[in-house]
Amino acid sequence: MNGADRLCDVLLANDVDVCFANPGTSEMHFVAALDRKPQMRCILGLFEGVVTGAADGYARMADKPAATLLHLGPGLANGLANLHNARRARTPMINVVGDHASYHLAHDAPLTSDIESLARPMSHYVRRIGGAHDVGRAIVDAYTASLTLPGVTTVILPADAAWGEVPEAPVVPVLRPRLSRVAPAAVEDVARLLRATLAAGRRPALLLTGGALRQGPLEAAGRIATLMGIRIIAEMSNGRIERGRGRVAIDKVPYVVDTAVAFLQDVDVLVLVGSQVPVGFFAYPGKPGRMVRDDCDIVTLARPGQDLGAVVTDLADALGVPGHAPLPPQRVEDEGGLPTGPLTADAINRIVGHMIPENAIVCDESVSSGRRFYPSTHASAPHDYLQLTGGAIGVGIPLATGAAVACPGRKVIGLQADGSGMYTVQGLWTQARENLDVVTVIIANRAYAILQGEMRNVGVNTFGRNAEMMLSLDQPALDWVSLARGMGVPGTRATTGEELAAQLPSALATPGPALIEAVI
Amino acid sequence: MNGADRLCDVLLANDVDVCFANPGTSEMHFVAALDRKPQMRCILGLFEGVVTGAADGYARMADKPAATLLHLGPGLANGLANLHNARRARTPMINVVGDHASYHLAHDAPLTSDIESLARPMSHYVRRIGGAHDVGRAIVDAYTASLTLPGVTTVILPADAAWGEVPEAPVVPVLRPRLSRVAPAAVEDVARLLRATLAAGRRPALLLTGGALRQGPLEAAGRIATLMGIRIIAEMSNGRIERGRGRVAIDKVPYVVDTAVAFLQDVDVLVLVGSQVPVGFFAYPGKPGRMVRDDCDIVTLARPGQDLGAVVTDLADALGVPGHAPLPPQRVEDEGGLPTGPLTADAINRIVGHMIPENAIVCDESVSSGRRFYPSTHASAPHDYLQLTGGAIGVGIPLATGAAVACPGRKVIGLQADGSGMYTVQGLWTQARENLDVVTVIIANRAYAILQGEMRNVGVNTFGRNAEMMLSLDQPALDWVSLARGMGVPGTRATTGEELAAQLPSALATPGPALIEAVI
Repeated sequence: MNGADRLCDVLLANDVDVCFANPGTSEMHFVAALDRKPQMRCILGLFEGVVTGAADGYARMADKPAATLLHLGPGLANGLANLHNARRARTPMINVVGDHASYHLAHDAPLTSDIESLARPMSHYVRRIGGAHDVGRAIVDAYTASLTLPGVTTVILPADAAWGEVPEAPVVPVLRPRLSRVAPAAVEDVARLLRATLAAGRRPALLLTGGALRQGPLEAAGRIATLMGIRIIAEMSNGRIERGRGRVAIDKVPYVVDTAVAFLQDVDVLVLVGSQVPVGFFAYPGKPGRMVRDDCDIVTLARPGQDLGAVVTDLADALGVPGHAPLPPQRVEDEGGLPTGPLTADAINRIVGHMIPENAIVCDESVSSGRRFYPSTHASAPHDYLQLTGGAIGVGIPLATGAAVACPGRKVIGLQADGSGMYTVQGLWTQARENLDVVTVIIANRAYAILQGEMRNVGVNTFGRNAEMMLSLDQPALDWVSLARGMGVPGTRATTGEELAAQLPSALATPGPALIEAVI
Repeated sequence: MNGADRLCDVLLANDVDVCFANPGTSEMHFVAALDRKPQMRCILGLFEGVVTGAADGYARMADKPAATLLHLGPGLANGLANLHNARRARTPMINVVGDHASYHLAHDAPLTSDIESLARPMSHYVRRIGGAHDVGRAIVDAYTASLTLPGVTTVILPADAAWGEVPEAPVVPVLRPRLSRVAPAAVEDVARLLRATLAAGRRPALLLTGGALRQGPLEAAGRIATLMGIRIIAEMSNGRIERGRGRVAIDKVPYVVDTAVAFLQDVDVLVLVGSQVPVGFFAYPGKPGRMVRDDCDIVTLARPGQDLGAVVTDLADALGVPGHAPLPPQRVEDEGGLPTGPLTADAINRIVGHMIPENAIVCDESVSSGRRFYPSTHASAPHDYLQLTGGAIGVGIPLATGAAVACPGRKVIGLQADGSGMYTVQGLWTQARENLDVVTVIIANRAYAILQGEMRNVGVNTFGRNAEMMLSLDQPALDWVSLARGMGVPGTRATTGEELAAQLPSALATPGPALIEAVI
């Protein structure tokens, strides 16, 4: 057997059985090895941003890594933006990047580049495989790192390591690696500090992210909130939140600086649960970089990468909050019938929020148009909420693709801005080929609306030709129904609330992918 | 005025007046400054691979750099694959990558990443601007570097350097930087060596690339070939070749290893004119890495980045080859009428080759299907030939876009494989918006055919499900006519020679972009 066979065996032995791929010549022995392993499900993306974004969506829902197969430096480069998002979400992932045979690098063939330099900024772990004999160890290390850091691991596979012979040997799976737990004494310390804070009349808040936003830990956090009057807040961007009717609602730190500052104004002590101190997504002249008050005390309960679900439950125990303590009251949706007439962003948010199927997965890359989607859907049917985590647009369509691969039988809704949707539009084809249950709702405002707002923020209210050309997406308007058709996804266009309210249930009821262009 | 205004002024003073862009919030002051300069033509790409590939095509034809505007690390990352191609073509380019305000970096906001680490592998020159006061110097340095290295320069513009105030001051253009010339003594040395080689009955060849492949130097090279019996050869991949009827035909080093080895078998002395010793595009077990014989002597006449056009003319002079010496005989096209019936790759090559308009620009990313296009079009109408230089697929549509911006009034033909076309399909929208005279001919073989061939090379002749899934592009077939329509480009489909021969002249005769899906 060769190194590539060993690579596949180690992945499969450890239950990594999906490989999102876009191969090239230097990966041919790896492709041939994958072809000998029908247990591995290989899924082609027609662009590497689809590959890495789908691996992200898959792992967020499957709670285990997918592998990716990327072709040399340029193939990796094409996937980096979505690796950046995965890195921010700390999504476990094993990227296998092919490289030239080691002895060929000295020739500086056209596709040669410094893969490590490209990989490091968007990976938690980078390792070059030293030869066929090293493949097994390298993949075990990457697998372990992906689940314990947790995060993005990138393994560089020289072609001669793939084709080099290794002795046949059975592969023993490693024990499923676990996240590190926060020491009980540290939890006790924070519990004591919280009690002292409350006793002093100061207001604490828990800032949650990652595994703390699953149903169980959120209930523990909700009980802490109800019983002790401690605010619970989620980071602005999170990999996955289990939410909706029957679950504990949690507000996220707002995106807009002034709003975020006001939101955090009353926090005297901020307890970080795997989170970072909230900062401005961007810097603005004269505005603060940190969103908390200067005199807000920061306390770290858990660092990123620790077991955030467990630590919240442990904290509830340490605070003496019983499992039967009341949860926060359910939030009630502001009812009043579905919006009718010409579509607006808010109308789309309302209609989609109203129609989320039970146990659906919502992938939100709605950017400016969907900013009110999350706050208005606490009472929607229970669903998983996946969002853009690193600000690198173009994750939405791939994320939905990967989530659907991970969760057959669940409906996936992609709430997708048009500008960011174009970045990785090729993902629609993968949805068609794999017949995935994804309904993509394109919010077609035909502009980089967020940037038009930012231009006004820098004092430019009348746009000249250049600003117009760089910030609007019209002339010509994108025709998303044709784009979808071009990739085998049936599509419709909605311009009124009535049309969207008719098209969305129909799309959701039909197996396989669909797209609705909701024009505002 | 602020740093961003100064940046625009320095670019414009030095005749850099096109900016391919995809901005974000951190670039808003730069966008606002561009908006105050209507002399700057800002062109939006809906994905950064379009932006950088278009800048490459523009500069190859305009012989001066365009600027690009990219958004932070992920925006740069999305553009890297085509920067890789531009780096291999040594195309002058000035990338301006926005970054957070310098004081904001410490906060590790979501979009923060190590931009330098991403930029270096695909840039000849990287520089972070030190503040508003440093903008002018940095852009002059980048401009000079882009034309003298020549190549890809990447300048990182922190937001506070863009918005920081600088004193109003007139901008003085720098003298147009020139490529370094090869010293006359070095040219004489090579001339002497060539004479001695011939006298000894050994066979020399000149391996040309870059500026040596323009009409003037090619004629000088052709006269050397005719008069002295020295072979002239072009590298496998070159940024631009002026060719066609009335010009000196030059063969390129073949892609396939065995073919390349045979092609170079009789070369005893290889003179590098800005070129590299031909090596395998990839390594294959048991095949050589270098395509020349082991005992072939290598002589460097000019290094990459030197004035390659001038050195060929200088060499002709040193060899005593007069300007009135005969050129090589014109190659004659194998006539016999246009192919009819169901399309094949060769039929498409023949038909397109036959119909190239006078003075057109052909952007070739036809990959495996078009491998016989170049050899069969030496007698086509005179045209510029631009090709994929670094092997990072996805350059074709952007390259054609940029070439058309540089050369209004000339027709651009994009000979485009379907798999690589999907990588940067968003470029069609820019062609529509800018109403560019580009006719894209998609060679739709619905497969990564080159990889299917490589699989057979590694001994796999029967594909299982995984190989099938990773190497074919059907199920569903891409519908390029719908894709084009979705982005505002009119399209037609041809399945026979007759259809293509009818559709292509019509598309070429109509102003603005068009697409023909040629199904094989």
